[in-house]
Amino acid sequence: MAHTLGELAKLLDAQLIGDESIVIEGIATLAQAQSGQLSFLANMAYKDQLQHTQASAVIVHPKQAEECQCAALVLDNPYLGYAKVSQFFNTLPSPSGQIHPSAVVSPLAKVADGVSIGAKAVIDDYAVLEEGVVIGAGSVLGTNSRIGARTRLHQNVSIYHDVVIGRDGIIHSGAVIGSDGFGFANEKGKWVKICQIGGVSIGDDVEIGANTTIDRGAMSDTVIGDGVKLDNQIQIAHNVEVGAHTAMAGGCMIAGSTKIGSCCTLAGGVGVAGHLQLVDGTHVTAMTLVTKSITEPGSYSSGTAMSSTAEWRKSAARFRQLDEMAKRIKLIEKSQQE
Amino acid sequence: MAHTLGELAKLLDAQLIGDESIVIEGIATLAQAQSGQLSFLANMAYKDQLQHTQASAVIVHPKQAEECQCAALVLDNPYLGYAKVSQFFNTLPSPSGQIHPSAVVSPLAKVADGVSIGAKAVIDDYAVLEEGVVIGAGSVLGTNSRIGARTRLHQNVSIYHDVVIGRDGIIHSGAVIGSDGFGFANEKGKWVKICQIGGVSIGDDVEIGANTTIDRGAMSDTVIGDGVKLDNQIQIAHNVEVGAHTAMAGGCMIAGSTKIGSCCTLAGGVGVAGHLQLVDGTHVTAMTLVTKSITEPGSYSSGTAMSSTAEWRKSAARFRQLDEMAKRIKLIEKSQQE
Amino acid sequence: MAHTLGELAKLLDAQLIGDESIVIEGIATLAQAQSGQLSFLANMAYKDQLQHTQASAVIVHPKQAEECQCAALVLDNPYLGYAKVSQFFNTLPSPSGQIHPSAVVSPLAKVADGVSIGAKAVIDDYAVLEEGVVIGAGSVLGTNSRIGARTRLHQNVSIYHDVVIGRDGIIHSGAVIGSDGFGFANEKGKWVKICQIGGVSIGDDVEIGANTTIDRGAMSDTVIGDGVKLDNQIQIAHNVEVGAHTAMAGGCMIAGSTKIGSCCTLAGGVGVAGHLQLVDGTHVTAMTLVTKSITEPGSYSSGTAMSSTAEWRKSAARFRQLDEMAKRIKLIEKSQQE
Repeated sequence: MAHTLGELAKLLDAQLIGDESIVIEGIATLAQAQSGQLSFLANMAYKDQLQHTQASAVIVHPKQAEECQCAALVLDNPYLGYAKVSQFFNTLPSPSGQIHPSAVVSPLAKVADGVSIGAKAVIDDYAVLEEGVVIGAGSVLGTNSRIGARTRLHQNVSIYHDVVIGRDGIIHSGAVIGSDGFGFANEKGKWVKICQIGGVSIGDDVEIGANTTIDRGAMSDTVIGDGVKLDNQIQIAHNVEVGAHTAMAGGCMIAGSTKIGSCCTLAGGVGVAGHLQLVDGTHVTAMTLVTKSITEPGSYSSGTAMSSTAEWRKSAARFRQLDEMAKRIKLIEKSQQE
Repeated sequence: MAHTLGELAKLLDAQLIGDESIVIEGIATLAQAQSGQLSFLANMAYKDQLQHTQASAVIVHPKQAEECQCAALVLDNPYLGYAKVSQFFNTLPSPSGQIHPSAVVSPLAKVADGVSIGAKAVIDDYAVLEEGVVIGAGSVLGTNSRIGARTRLHQNVSIYHDVVIGRDGIIHSGAVIGSDGFGFANEKGKWVKICQIGGVSIGDDVEIGANTTIDRGAMSDTVIGDGVKLDNQIQIAHNVEVGAHTAMAGGCMIAGSTKIGSCCTLAGGVGVAGHLQLVDGTHVTAMTLVTKSITEPGSYSSGTAMSSTAEWRKSAARFRQLDEMAKRIKLIEKSQQE
Repeated sequence: MAHTLGELAKLLDAQLIGDESIVIEGIATLAQAQSGQLSFLANMAYKDQLQHTQASAVIVHPKQAEECQCAALVLDNPYLGYAKVSQFFNTLPSPSGQIHPSAVVSPLAKVADGVSIGAKAVIDDYAVLEEGVVIGAGSVLGTNSRIGARTRLHQNVSIYHDVVIGRDGIIHSGAVIGSDGFGFANEKGKWVKICQIGGVSIGDDVEIGANTTIDRGAMSDTVIGDGVKLDNQIQIAHNVEVGAHTAMAGGCMIAGSTKIGSCCTLAGGVGVAGHLQLVDGTHVTAMTLVTKSITEPGSYSSGTAMSSTAEWRKSAARFRQLDEMAKRIKLIEKSQQE
């Protein structure tokens, strides 16, 4: 995993300032980089570190090019450059390209050439694995499900029946896709199950985090668009639709039948109630509860700001009196006008 | 999976308006249904779709019976009718009724006839599987645990030792039952573990969602009543008791030793502090934090409503000044009285 | 699992009041204990139960020693005494000390003597298991990862490559350690993955709850200090650092690069934004969102207190008017001064 700076400049289409023969063996932050490593400056809060970094080269914006004490790869978007270069120094073990003898693969499944299936994985009847798919140890793929080319399931992933996943995806350990939506009718106090007959349809280039759960649809499919990125421990309920290139951070909970647009971002722990629509370009701050549809792009929030618990107790007690306080203000105003 | 309308009317005990020989091959929403499919009208927001649906028949309330353009199954509770009919069109693969040769079943376990055990499942010593139990691929059942008749564990479920699960239950993938409760005593800044010696006791007809966790009790059992429905990613701490027919949506977190009554509903992301009691018939709205016992049935909430982030920032800043605002109002009132 | 009271007094270094030959066969709460069982009084809310308990002996503080109707083990910290004694009555099945024939252990892995590896477990190349390690059924250990002496992984745990876990740890079922951090650069609306090249480094005596996820670092490691206790369903993002002896309850979400000090406690459902620092001795109440660094030890909170939904609606509506209310108060005050 060593590359010359010249090679990296070509791969990134970056302007190179310095010696193209410098060998780069790794990447690190400005503060932690050592000789032989490449770093980057994307967040101006770290700009001062440019003076002191031990990195052999740094990816920088043209504005900072002259401030580098070392070689530089100059790009308009240094963070994007870092993302691209990270792929040359990946430590993820390469797939074997083989089916481990301890895996259980149904003779009715259809497995393309070059597929890797890890130890103890289980592939059920009529499942389809396209070329280059990687199935991690202990993962289970249900009946009639399909994994698109080059998609990688890490260890202990659970995919139910009738789930379709596109190409070039990454599914992390413990993720569950296709579990039953939470649907019941009430009969005299008891819950009668509504069988969840729909499936799950996931686009290309989707990443799904560890222990994230995506329920199957009640009648039609739950749908995740192309390029969607879901962090860990997210819950997507039945018949939710998530538009292309939307990203959600850890712990988001999306209730049933809600439609989230394209290119949205939901910060960590956001909850969205059911049967809502969030327009393309909606951004929601951490731990906000969305209880109404959002029709205008922009940023949305709920909750209160943090205080010391002692201060907070006073505010929280007054929160309960807010309506009364508002009425008293009105009364005072009225008395002044008299 | 095809049924005549006449058969379905008999099964649902519904009044049939139309041709009893119509063949129904599936179910779908009013908007998506096509010829040969059955739909239903339960939410009056969709009432207009009754005019345009392509469904061959619709389950409706007597009040809408005359508005149907197609055949109708008339029931007082159309949603319940839909729930019941969904079971005739379920796509869930049937269990094999066999023990997969790759499963590891202790010779000391007791496995009834007709039990299905999937590939790579592990059944430990002294475990008991009653008739018709289904164990999904990769699931692990710990020592001395017992699964009641016809209960189904999906893939990669983890059940610890000394866990008792009733009949007719459904446990989804990634669920963990019987992990240690979170109990420690502090000794000079270090945490000393309290061994969690109790078990978990789960009633009949319980559904447990994907990646939900239920901890074992510290000394006595954690208890989940009959007919309880838990969605995905719920956390039930040690010695919690959940009353019969209570339902919780995704992401609820119930802290230790809290007792939740029967027929309660907790919406998504609700947190309940430890050592509380919630009376039967308590309903809690999404992402509420319950910090006191609830002694009267009814609906409870906390949090704030969502705004644009710009508007929210103003409110959040003022929230910290609430106590001071209240005092200023009082002062004004006092000065007016003088 | 029977011990005389005399033995337990010696093990706990407690003063014994009563007959040292009494045989103790289990532990239980004051209310549930029966003859032959030991109980304890740590929470004064249960003090009255001391009169009526059927326990054969009780661990008490010197102040309550005379109120016992049965034998007593007298300790300054009865709760700590209970923790220590719980270990003599643990019901957790003992490890086999053997490698189950169905486990898949790479010939390139290094497995010490006396290691237990459960059925269907998978140990990848170059993994290292030190003496006394216990690997539960279905757990997967990735390439080049290392598990310290006596650490126990329960069932279906997923450990990625390059993860180092210290000694005497406990990892519960469904936990995922070393999944990719959530890092992407945006290129014309599409997300470009940043390969997560760092690992995870976990200290000694750490407990990690069921379905908790800990992401690997982007470039350097995510770090969990010695003695840290993490409950179920916690999410630790890339490059987070958690200081020694900090404890977090279920559902906490810590965003990337945040540093949490030592001896902190986070109650259930707490969210902490990224790139923050929380000083040693920080305590955060349930479901608080921390959006700023905390530089003073103490207790911190956000959110509002729970009300009936009807009352809450009024307060929530007024919350949106808070800024306007504050301005009106100011106007009134001004008009009074004129």
